[in-house]
Amino acid sequence: MAADDTQAQRLYDTVSRLYPICRSVTGNGVRETLAILAEQIPLEIHEVPSGTAVLDWEVPDEWNIADAYIADDSGRRLVDFRACNLHVLNYSVPVDAEMSLEELRPHLFSLPDQPDRIPYRTSYYERNWGFCLSDRQLVSLTPGRYRVRVDSTLEPGHLTYGEVVVPGRLDDEILVSSHVCHPSLCDDNLSGIAVSAALARLLLDGPTPRHTVRFLYAPGTIGTISWLAHNRSTAHRIRHGLTLTCLGDAHPFTYKRTVGGDAVIDRAAAHVLARDSAANQVIDFFPYGYDERQYNAPGFRLPVGSLMRGRHGQFPEYHTSGDDLSFVTGARMVQSLELLRSIVEIVDGDRHLVNLEPFGEPQLGRRGLYGALGGQNLPDGQLAMLWVLNLSDGTHSLLDIAERADIAFESVRATAALLEEHGLLAEAGGDALPG
Amino acid sequence: MAADDTQAQRLYDTVSRLYPICRSVTGNGVRETLAILAEQIPLEIHEVPSGTAVLDWEVPDEWNIADAYIADDSGRRLVDFRACNLHVLNYSVPVDAEMSLEELRPHLFSLPDQPDRIPYRTSYYERNWGFCLSDRQLVSLTPGRYRVRVDSTLEPGHLTYGEVVVPGRLDDEILVSSHVCHPSLCDDNLSGIAVSAALARLLLDGPTPRHTVRFLYAPGTIGTISWLAHNRSTAHRIRHGLTLTCLGDAHPFTYKRTVGGDAVIDRAAAHVLARDSAANQVIDFFPYGYDERQYNAPGFRLPVGSLMRGRHGQFPEYHTSGDDLSFVTGARMVQSLELLRSIVEIVDGDRHLVNLEPFGEPQLGRRGLYGALGGQNLPDGQLAMLWVLNLSDGTHSLLDIAERADIAFESVRATAALLEEHGLLAEAGGDALPG
Amino acid sequence: MAADDTQAQRLYDTVSRLYPICRSVTGNGVRETLAILAEQIPLEIHEVPSGTAVLDWEVPDEWNIADAYIADDSGRRLVDFRACNLHVLNYSVPVDAEMSLEELRPHLFSLPDQPDRIPYRTSYYERNWGFCLSDRQLVSLTPGRYRVRVDSTLEPGHLTYGEVVVPGRLDDEILVSSHVCHPSLCDDNLSGIAVSAALARLLLDGPTPRHTVRFLYAPGTIGTISWLAHNRSTAHRIRHGLTLTCLGDAHPFTYKRTVGGDAVIDRAAAHVLARDSAANQVIDFFPYGYDERQYNAPGFRLPVGSLMRGRHGQFPEYHTSGDDLSFVTGARMVQSLELLRSIVEIVDGDRHLVNLEPFGEPQLGRRGLYGALGGQNLPDGQLAMLWVLNLSDGTHSLLDIAERADIAFESVRATAALLEEHGLLAEAGGDALPG
Repeated sequence: MAADDTQAQRLYDTVSRLYPICRSVTGNGVRETLAILAEQIPLEIHEVPSGTAVLDWEVPDEWNIADAYIADDSGRRLVDFRACNLHVLNYSVPVDAEMSLEELRPHLFSLPDQPDRIPYRTSYYERNWGFCLSDRQLVSLTPGRYRVRVDSTLEPGHLTYGEVVVPGRLDDEILVSSHVCHPSLCDDNLSGIAVSAALARLLLDGPTPRHTVRFLYAPGTIGTISWLAHNRSTAHRIRHGLTLTCLGDAHPFTYKRTVGGDAVIDRAAAHVLARDSAANQVIDFFPYGYDERQYNAPGFRLPVGSLMRGRHGQFPEYHTSGDDLSFVTGARMVQSLELLRSIVEIVDGDRHLVNLEPFGEPQLGRRGLYGALGGQNLPDGQLAMLWVLNLSDGTHSLLDIAERADIAFESVRATAALLEEHGLLAEAGGDALPG
Repeated sequence: MAADDTQAQRLYDTVSRLYPICRSVTGNGVRETLAILAEQIPLEIHEVPSGTAVLDWEVPDEWNIADAYIADDSGRRLVDFRACNLHVLNYSVPVDAEMSLEELRPHLFSLPDQPDRIPYRTSYYERNWGFCLSDRQLVSLTPGRYRVRVDSTLEPGHLTYGEVVVPGRLDDEILVSSHVCHPSLCDDNLSGIAVSAALARLLLDGPTPRHTVRFLYAPGTIGTISWLAHNRSTAHRIRHGLTLTCLGDAHPFTYKRTVGGDAVIDRAAAHVLARDSAANQVIDFFPYGYDERQYNAPGFRLPVGSLMRGRHGQFPEYHTSGDDLSFVTGARMVQSLELLRSIVEIVDGDRHLVNLEPFGEPQLGRRGLYGALGGQNLPDGQLAMLWVLNLSDGTHSLLDIAERADIAFESVRATAALLEEHGLLAEAGGDALPG
Repeated sequence: MAADDTQAQRLYDTVSRLYPICRSVTGNGVRETLAILAEQIPLEIHEVPSGTAVLDWEVPDEWNIADAYIADDSGRRLVDFRACNLHVLNYSVPVDAEMSLEELRPHLFSLPDQPDRIPYRTSYYERNWGFCLSDRQLVSLTPGRYRVRVDSTLEPGHLTYGEVVVPGRLDDEILVSSHVCHPSLCDDNLSGIAVSAALARLLLDGPTPRHTVRFLYAPGTIGTISWLAHNRSTAHRIRHGLTLTCLGDAHPFTYKRTVGGDAVIDRAAAHVLARDSAANQVIDFFPYGYDERQYNAPGFRLPVGSLMRGRHGQFPEYHTSGDDLSFVTGARMVQSLELLRSIVEIVDGDRHLVNLEPFGEPQLGRRGLYGALGGQNLPDGQLAMLWVLNLSDGTHSLLDIAERADIAFESVRATAALLEEHGLLAEAGGDALPG
């Protein structure tokens, strides 16, 4: 509890520090974000020059912004980037002009359905400028002359991403990927970033995992496309993966499957979510959402699912100023971290074992593994033992057994470890895999 | 609407002209029927001599009938073939005799459950004669002497069937098969015949389909057996097929699957019926019904399903004088034609395409294929594009994609065509198949 | 009815004669039990010496018991083996001592939830002694001195099992296995033993089955382990199997699947149970219960399911003195026998046949196999014929056809036999298998 409270505070602090920064797909906002993460984990930073061809794409010019506002003719700032960086259409080209409301109007974006919230809008691949504001403010604007300023630069530079690799005993990798391009939106995706970094820290401080675990912090789409372009020949090492988003809100968990739909990561997530709460849900893949789109593309088909609480576009605060520091809590991020860790532990720990005494049941009693007094019903732990022995024929993994027996993976894993100690189980094709 | 009205009138007119003809598995009724169809479509007529061995069967003697009646001792016709050709047991041998009611009785067939309707009965393979009449009339017959006359011939002749082939770019065929052996029964199967001929006309007048489309008009069982016997070495070209029956009544649609149950025709029909109305249903194959029985036999296993509205034996008018000109409408036959056309378009248009930029998503924006303003939810058409790109890996056909994405096949097809135009998709193994 | 009454009486008599015997995993109780069965069926008796290594186990010392009691200081027997052999902890080592209630207490077992019943308890693999008694009696024991006597022997001897083999035309075997180690418990498993012996008698007296049918009567776990150890190289001949238990109580039937879950025996049992009563149920395998655990172990994977009425541990009388002669009836054992026989007949009679006239339907009428009068719905028997003809393509067995057509296996089998007679069907790869 105390440890959880500390973890909750740490996660919330990370989100709070990252919240004010104006991020985009390129620029210093991402660099500052990664620098803060680098205080927690040994992040390796990559800079990809503008103009670099990455898969079917090209890295765009780098965007930075110092200030932006709409002022009235008295010079009073009506819409002010310094108050909330969502006010600027992300990737706005510079503008410095005076114009009528009529000229300004096509550059203003609001949410008539949520009149008090500022929407989040971008224009990455079409040069444009604009402001986002509450609909209440928009409708209050009176005809007249407005001073419009976006003090941004859009010039050759770099796209920045960071990664940290926790070395495992296998070259096979588990990928945990979080997009880092959104400005002041807490749930989407500062929560995902903070939870990801916390898991990286836990794994770095814990025993060596079987799989190598890679944590990627990249701008959405173009950042991940850049990573894939630079890792095209080794990306196949990713045997299990997750994108993380919206892990601090109050919704139950949703896991979105890989395009194949029956990967180990899909089954591990379903196992954990079902045992966590009946309110959690597992949904099918669809080719929209976050960077699972890129990983699951037909040229890669990396089995990367997506873990979230609130679903992309399905809650009103999504991509609005409502996704602020009050929308997320540290306690909920701790829950998300624990659930994520359980999923990663399953995909990391899933193995195929072989019963070394497969002809009938081995005599457990002689080994002190069985209650001596017969004629009664069987304690649960012993049923787990019988399941593991029966299904450990080289074709069933521990997760297969947990699913078939409807027993928590962790119990199956611990039972298997005990049977391994007693010489009743061994890793299938054990020489090939370093345990 | 006007076009539909014209089509409806044309379909109803065809049924009206065919209605009075006394058809059977052989004889002039089938010839007259095919002659009327030949006014609409370039029908090739085949005549198979009686006694010809066809598979396990033999073509029977040809049956023709000029007149038939039961008269009372005053010479008044009580049951008269000229009033309704259902009155004669189809394939009755000639008879000309006077007899008591007691002697006549075993030759009379009625429907006690539907006392006003005349049943349709046949005796193709056992030489017999008989009369069908309403039960009301049957019970009113008083003991006495009756004059009984069937002026038929049953002699060596021919079995007649017709077919029309719409040439496609492939040798692979789509078969549309309708039985033409029933006498004055509108729904079963003048509606099927009329709808089939209308589709043939539309395809002949339209662009060349990918598949060759064959329309067969043959007497049930023995006619189809004859066709199969004469086309045994090429029947395997049929890759998709349908038998048509009962397409003018007021029931929702039923599609009966092929024996395999998961053929492309099964999936195409299910896709179209589900999107047409929740009242439509898809049922499993069973080895009874119409000529799908023969096509699905183990020696052929041609994937031929069956499309109908009212189901074989499941509505009271079935195989009775209730299946008359008031039981079918042109508007309903137009609906049937449209639905049939949609199914045929799917099986004809289903292809396997390959994404040519499969590493991540291609940059659609650069090609003008994507809304430029980000941060919002995705319009439906763009989701179709992402689905087609993601699943076009050579293993998923367009129908697979439509099913997986739950998008109408036509939208998927049109989206794929657009992506093909932009060089993002190409036919899998494109050289082998002429597009 | 009369035959059933006789059979019911015979089954109940067998149970009644076996009831008083004190059985265990070794000892004279099993020998006496098998001797009674040997009056009905030609049982071959096997004796396995104590200390014999069997798979991962070792045959234990042989246990026999002459008497046992707890007496008060006046010599009055309070708990008396002669009244009910459940009173002794099965496999108790000898004891002859006087002790306080406090010393005695850890050796006493009762059922506080069912205060009038004596539990059944064993201590096969840990040397111990003890008494089982009703909780009402237990709580009535007053402090004082007690005379405790178990007049048993636990010495090198043998483990005994019996088997009878009904020779078939194939070497492939059907196994019917019943545990014979329980003392005075009628349902579990005198009912299983009696029903098994009755089926063996019926098969011995009937026509030669296709499969060789083996009936095994062995002590649970160690007895079956011994049989498997002695038959390790030929056990693979078992193609279908069942363990029998609890076949005389009033519960509907439960069939427990093999670990594979889709063996022919699983499908045959599901077919029979579903057609017998909607109250019957089929449950998945779990690695506990009776000797199906051993047969389904990964080194053997013999497809052995389990047939029962009341389920292991799921009814209050289970493993208590409540499972007495009033808990079972002969009529229910007759039902069990009939159901078991139906299942065995399916797995024995399931064959793959091939339609010899597979091109379209054969002309059944010519062969007198079809009603001559057409135009009406089809009688059920003729639909069975069409199903058998359509699906007899070498890939569907008779059971596949029965399942697909939803027709009783026996109808499908009889229909296939008729078509075989008429030369329309033949055994697939018929030379290899003797019919």
